[in-house]
Amino acid sequence: MQTRRQILGGAGLAALGATMVARSALANLPEAATQSAAATQPPLAPRDGRAYNPVVTLNGWTLPWRMREGWKEFHLVAEPVVREIAPGMKANLWGYNGQSPGPTIEAIEGERVRIFVTNRLPEHTTIHWHGILLPCGMDGVGGLTQPQIPPGKTYVYEFPLTKSGTFMYHPHADEMVQMAMGMHGFFVVHPRDPARHRVDRDFVFLVNAFDIEPGSMTPRVNTMLDFNLWTWNSRAFPGIDSLAVRQGDRVRIRMGNLTMTNHPIHLHGYDFRVSGTDGGWVAPQAQWPEVTVDLPVGSMRCIEFTADAPGDWAFHCHKSHHTMNPMGHAVPTLIGVDHKGVGERIARLIPDYMVMGERGMAEMGEMEMELPPNTLPMMTGQGPFGALEMGGMFTVVKVRAGLARGDYRDPGWYAHPPGTVAYEWKGESRS
Amino acid sequence: MQTRRQILGGAGLAALGATMVARSALANLPEAATQSAAATQPPLAPRDGRAYNPVVTLNGWTLPWRMREGWKEFHLVAEPVVREIAPGMKANLWGYNGQSPGPTIEAIEGERVRIFVTNRLPEHTTIHWHGILLPCGMDGVGGLTQPQIPPGKTYVYEFPLTKSGTFMYHPHADEMVQMAMGMHGFFVVHPRDPARHRVDRDFVFLVNAFDIEPGSMTPRVNTMLDFNLWTWNSRAFPGIDSLAVRQGDRVRIRMGNLTMTNHPIHLHGYDFRVSGTDGGWVAPQAQWPEVTVDLPVGSMRCIEFTADAPGDWAFHCHKSHHTMNPMGHAVPTLIGVDHKGVGERIARLIPDYMVMGERGMAEMGEMEMELPPNTLPMMTGQGPFGALEMGGMFTVVKVRAGLARGDYRDPGWYAHPPGTVAYEWKGESRS
Amino acid sequence: MQTRRQILGGAGLAALGATMVARSALANLPEAATQSAAATQPPLAPRDGRAYNPVVTLNGWTLPWRMREGWKEFHLVAEPVVREIAPGMKANLWGYNGQSPGPTIEAIEGERVRIFVTNRLPEHTTIHWHGILLPCGMDGVGGLTQPQIPPGKTYVYEFPLTKSGTFMYHPHADEMVQMAMGMHGFFVVHPRDPARHRVDRDFVFLVNAFDIEPGSMTPRVNTMLDFNLWTWNSRAFPGIDSLAVRQGDRVRIRMGNLTMTNHPIHLHGYDFRVSGTDGGWVAPQAQWPEVTVDLPVGSMRCIEFTADAPGDWAFHCHKSHHTMNPMGHAVPTLIGVDHKGVGERIARLIPDYMVMGERGMAEMGEMEMELPPNTLPMMTGQGPFGALEMGGMFTVVKVRAGLARGDYRDPGWYAHPPGTVAYEWKGESRS
Repeated sequence: MQTRRQILGGAGLAALGATMVARSALANLPEAATQSAAATQPPLAPRDGRAYNPVVTLNGWTLPWRMREGWKEFHLVAEPVVREIAPGMKANLWGYNGQSPGPTIEAIEGERVRIFVTNRLPEHTTIHWHGILLPCGMDGVGGLTQPQIPPGKTYVYEFPLTKSGTFMYHPHADEMVQMAMGMHGFFVVHPRDPARHRVDRDFVFLVNAFDIEPGSMTPRVNTMLDFNLWTWNSRAFPGIDSLAVRQGDRVRIRMGNLTMTNHPIHLHGYDFRVSGTDGGWVAPQAQWPEVTVDLPVGSMRCIEFTADAPGDWAFHCHKSHHTMNPMGHAVPTLIGVDHKGVGERIARLIPDYMVMGERGMAEMGEMEMELPPNTLPMMTGQGPFGALEMGGMFTVVKVRAGLARGDYRDPGWYAHPPGTVAYEWKGESRS
Repeated sequence: MQTRRQILGGAGLAALGATMVARSALANLPEAATQSAAATQPPLAPRDGRAYNPVVTLNGWTLPWRMREGWKEFHLVAEPVVREIAPGMKANLWGYNGQSPGPTIEAIEGERVRIFVTNRLPEHTTIHWHGILLPCGMDGVGGLTQPQIPPGKTYVYEFPLTKSGTFMYHPHADEMVQMAMGMHGFFVVHPRDPARHRVDRDFVFLVNAFDIEPGSMTPRVNTMLDFNLWTWNSRAFPGIDSLAVRQGDRVRIRMGNLTMTNHPIHLHGYDFRVSGTDGGWVAPQAQWPEVTVDLPVGSMRCIEFTADAPGDWAFHCHKSHHTMNPMGHAVPTLIGVDHKGVGERIARLIPDYMVMGERGMAEMGEMEMELPPNTLPMMTGQGPFGALEMGGMFTVVKVRAGLARGDYRDPGWYAHPPGTVAYEWKGESRS
Repeated sequence: MQTRRQILGGAGLAALGATMVARSALANLPEAATQSAAATQPPLAPRDGRAYNPVVTLNGWTLPWRMREGWKEFHLVAEPVVREIAPGMKANLWGYNGQSPGPTIEAIEGERVRIFVTNRLPEHTTIHWHGILLPCGMDGVGGLTQPQIPPGKTYVYEFPLTKSGTFMYHPHADEMVQMAMGMHGFFVVHPRDPARHRVDRDFVFLVNAFDIEPGSMTPRVNTMLDFNLWTWNSRAFPGIDSLAVRQGDRVRIRMGNLTMTNHPIHLHGYDFRVSGTDGGWVAPQAQWPEVTVDLPVGSMRCIEFTADAPGDWAFHCHKSHHTMNPMGHAVPTLIGVDHKGVGERIARLIPDYMVMGERGMAEMGEMEMELPPNTLPMMTGQGPFGALEMGGMFTVVKVRAGLARGDYRDPGWYAHPPGTVAYEWKGESRS
C-alpha cells in the first residue's frame, strides 16, 4: 500500500546531512511516495496535466508527481528495501521508494521533467535514463557526465521528453553491484496524442535475476552466470500476478531485461508482433510474427496482440530452468531409465544413482519437500487440474469475456491468484 | 527402420491398466508406428487427404496418420528410448515412438487433427503444441489446462489447424526434466495451396543439448549451463547426416531451439533470408540478409536460399564449443607460446604447464586418444583433405549438379557420410 | 607502429622450410607488414586502385596491399603475438602480423583478391572468409575444402569479391583453440560506387573474450562460459580507444562477435538503425530503431546514426559483468543491508560476511587495491567527475563541434585518452 512520508524534514534532515539540494529548497521538494505492497497497483490516472492512457506495472506501481512552473516533478529515493519475492520468501534488496524495482515513471512526449534523486544507500549512486535522448550532462554516468551522488544527498535531473516510447532507469555507478541488488525501474513516455499507439491494456515489467542462497536473504552480487532466482519485477512464481484482460482487448506488454542473459518470453495461445523497442516504435511493415520474443539484455520490447481467444494462457520465459525456483544445478539427480520393450537391455553404468528422481521429478512438484526458512520450493503451484510444477518467470494471461472496460481503478481487479481457470478444458477424457 | 506394433492390445493392455481412452475405443486407436533407426528417413508423401510437399526430418522421420470421419489421426507414445547420438555412443533418453526427438507431425492448414498420446514414461506428462493457435483446453499445460496424463494412460488432443507454419511439440509437465531428457518433436502445417511458400527441399530439425558424463549414458537433468553434448535432433557430429540438394534448388531449412542458450546457426557459401518463425511467415520486405541465424530458445526460424553454388558447405553453430564433443572445460590445457621474433622475451609465468596441447590441440583431432566406453572424441571426423577436427552441431550442406528432382522416396539418397567432397578445391598449392 | 620485414628471405627461409608457395615464387610475395602498437591507426587511404572511404579499426590497423596483374594481393602471417590488453597488462595470444586481432582487410566490390597466408604457429591452421561468397575450395575449412596449412608453409587464397559488405576472417582448424587465442580479423568490401552507403566515420571492431588467470599471461583455451576478460579487438577498458566524431557526422560502427555469448552493445545519447549484417545491407523499411544492438555470436552488425548531440556518450556491452575486469565470480562479497526505517529488523542469516563490500563496491573503484602483476583492476578509470568504476567492454563516443572533416590521416586524432569530457554537465548542483 502506498503511503506518504516527509523524509527530508526535522531531525531526519540533520541525520542525513546537508544535501546537494540547497537547504532553502528542501521545503519545496515534491513528496517521495513510498510503497509497501508487492501486489500490482491500479494504474495511476493523470489528475492534472495532459491526458494519457496509463500503464499497469506488474507487481508494481506508478510514482505520483506534481506540476510546478511547467515542470513535471518526481522524487525518487534510492534505498535498501525488503522485497517479497513470493509468499514465503523475502529478500534484502536495494531499490527505490520502498520496493525493487522502483516505481514506474510516466510522462508525456513534449513535457519537461525534473527528477529529484535522494540517495539513502550506504554508497554513492547515479541514475541513467536508458533510451531517453537528453543532454549529455543529464545522462547519469558516474565520473563521466556527473559526480556520483553521495549517501545522504539529493541530486536533480532535468530534461525534456522529445519522443514517446518505452524506457527504463538504473544506476551507472558501481553498476554491477547496484543492478545485482535490484535497482531499476520502468519509464514510459506517452504520445502527445492519446489516440496514437492506443491499446486497451498496457502492461510493463522488468526481467531481473538474483543469486540468493537458500536460507539466506541477500543476493550474492558477484555471480555472473549461475543465478537461482529468475524474476519479473523482482517476483517469482507463484508471486507474479496474472495479467487479466477482457476478450477483444488490444493488449500491449512492455518488457525490459536487466539480467546477464537473453530471455525468450513465450505467450501461449497467440501470435503477436513486436511494436516497439527502447529505440522507438517499429514500423508495421518491419514487424515479424512471433510466439516468443527474445528479449536481449539492456533492451526493451513491446509486444501487441488482440485478445480474441478466451482462456488461461501460460506466459513465461522459455528457458526451462527459468521457470524453476532455487535448485542445485550440479546435483546428479539421475533418471534410471526403464527400457522394457525398447531393445537390448543396457547395463547401468552409474553405480550409485539417487532413488529420488529416478522416475523424473514430477513427484517433487506434487509433494513439496521441507525447505530451509525463507526459501521457495523448486517447483510449486496448484492449478484447477493439479500441480503446476513451475517457478521463476511464469504467470498466466487471463482472457475473460466478463470484464468491463474502464475498471482500471479497482485494485482488486488485478488481484487474480494464479492457477484459477475460467475457460474449461474442452477435450474429452473418454475414460 | 520403421516398424509397426500393437501396443494396446491383449496382455499389453492389462499391463498398462485402463487408459483415459475408453476400453471400447481402444480397438479403434490408430497404430503407433515406431522407429528404430537414427538415419534420416525419406519424406512421407501423402497417401490420402490433400497434396503437399513433405519435409525431410534430419536424422528423423514423419509420423504416419489415418483419416477417419474427417479427422487426421495420429498416435504418439511418450516412452524411454535409446538414441544413438553418433556411431559409438548411445544415450538413455525419453522420447516418442522409439526415438528422441519424436517423429515430425505433418498436416495441412484447415485440417482437423486428433492426436492420441499414450504415456509409457514412469511419471506423468502432457503435450504442448508450441505455436499452434487452438482452444485453451487443448494447450497441454499440466495443472492449468488439463490434468497431467498418468503413466499407462492415453489422452486425446483435438484441434483445427487454422494457419500454415512451423511449430513443435513438447511436454508442459515436469518440464525441465522432460525437455532435458529429449522430449520434443517438429510439427509442420503445410499451406492449403501447395504452390504457396513452395520450395524444392524443406529440411527440419530441433536443436537440443545434453549433459552426459563421459562413460555414462543418462543425461544429468539438473544442468543449467554446462552442457557437453550439443546436438541437432539428438545427434552430434559425426552423427548428423548431411543435407543434400540439387544445384539450383530452392532450399528451406527450419529449426527450433529447445536448449538453454541461443544458437547462431551459420551456413557457409550463401547468404539467406529468414522467411518464417513459429509465429508465422515473415513478409519479404521485413526480411534481413544473414549468413548466421541466431536461433533463440523456444523459437523457430526458417531460412531460405537458392543453392546455386556447388560444393560442400559447412553448416554449424558458430559458438566454437558447440562444434566440440565432451571435454573438460576447466582443464588448464595451456599453450606455451613461442615468441621468437616478436619482441622482448617474456618469462613464463605459469610454472607447470601441460606438455599436451602446448602447441594447440590439432594433434588431438588427428591422433584420437583412448576414451571411456560410449564416449565421443572431443573432435573428430575425416574429410577428403584430412582431419575435420569437429564435433557437436556440425554438418555439411552438399550442393550437387548431379541430383535429379523427384527422388524423395529413395532412402539412400539421404545417406551421405559426412566429409565426402565432390566439388574439388580449385586453388593452387604451389608447392 | 607499423614496420616492414622480409620474413621469407635468406636464412629465415631455410629455418621455415620449404613453403607451399614454390621457392621460385617467394621473391615475388608481397610484403607482410607487421604492427607493434595497440593504438588505433589512421585509416589507410587507397594509394592505387579504385577510390573508397576507408574504415577506422578500433585499436587496430588496415593491412597494406599491392596491385599485381589485376589482383589485389595481401600477405597475412599467422603467429604468436604479445597483445597489450590495456596499459599494465599484456597477453600471449595468437594473431596475425604482430597483433590480435589481425589487420583489417579492405577491398572493393568487383576486385579479385589473392591472399597469401604464412603459418608461423606451432600447429596447422586455415583461414575461413566469413560471409564472403566464393568458390567452395577457397572456403578455408580444414579437412573439408583444403588441407590445413602446416607450420612454416604459405598458402594462397584467390577469389573475386562479388558484393560489398561487412565480413571477417578466422581459422577453421583447431577452431575452438585458435579462436580462444585471438585469431580473427575484419574484412570490409567497399561498394564499387563510393557514394553508396557513404558515411563520414566508419569504425570497425570485433568482440572477443579471454580467460586469463590473474597474474598469468596465456588464455585458458578450454573455458566455455566463465571468461574474465571481455574485450573489443583484444582490448579492455581503459585500453579501448574512444571513438571521436565531428558533430553532424553520419557515423557507422561495424561489429562482429567471436565469443561464446550474445553481446548487447548499448550506445548512450542516440537511437540508431542496424543498416547491415554479414549477410548484406538491410533495406531501410526493414530496419528497427534501437539503442542496444544484440550482437549474436558469429554475426556482424552495422549501426548508423547522425551525431547531432555533442558530448561524451558511454558505449558498452550492457551485460554488467562485461564492463568489469577480472574478478572472482564466486566470492561471497555480501552486502549487509541496513534496514533503518523500512520495517521489521531482520536477523542476519549469513554468519561470517566480509567487511569489504558491505556497503557495495564503489570503494574498490575509488581506492584500487594491490593486484597480482600483469592484472587489471576489477573496475577502474578516472573521468572528469571522479572514478568511472568500469572495465571490459566500455568506451566513449566523443561528439565534438571542433573537429574538421578530412583529418583522417592524423594518427594523433584518434588518440583520445578515455574519460576526458568536453561537453560539460549542464545540470545544477544546487548545493
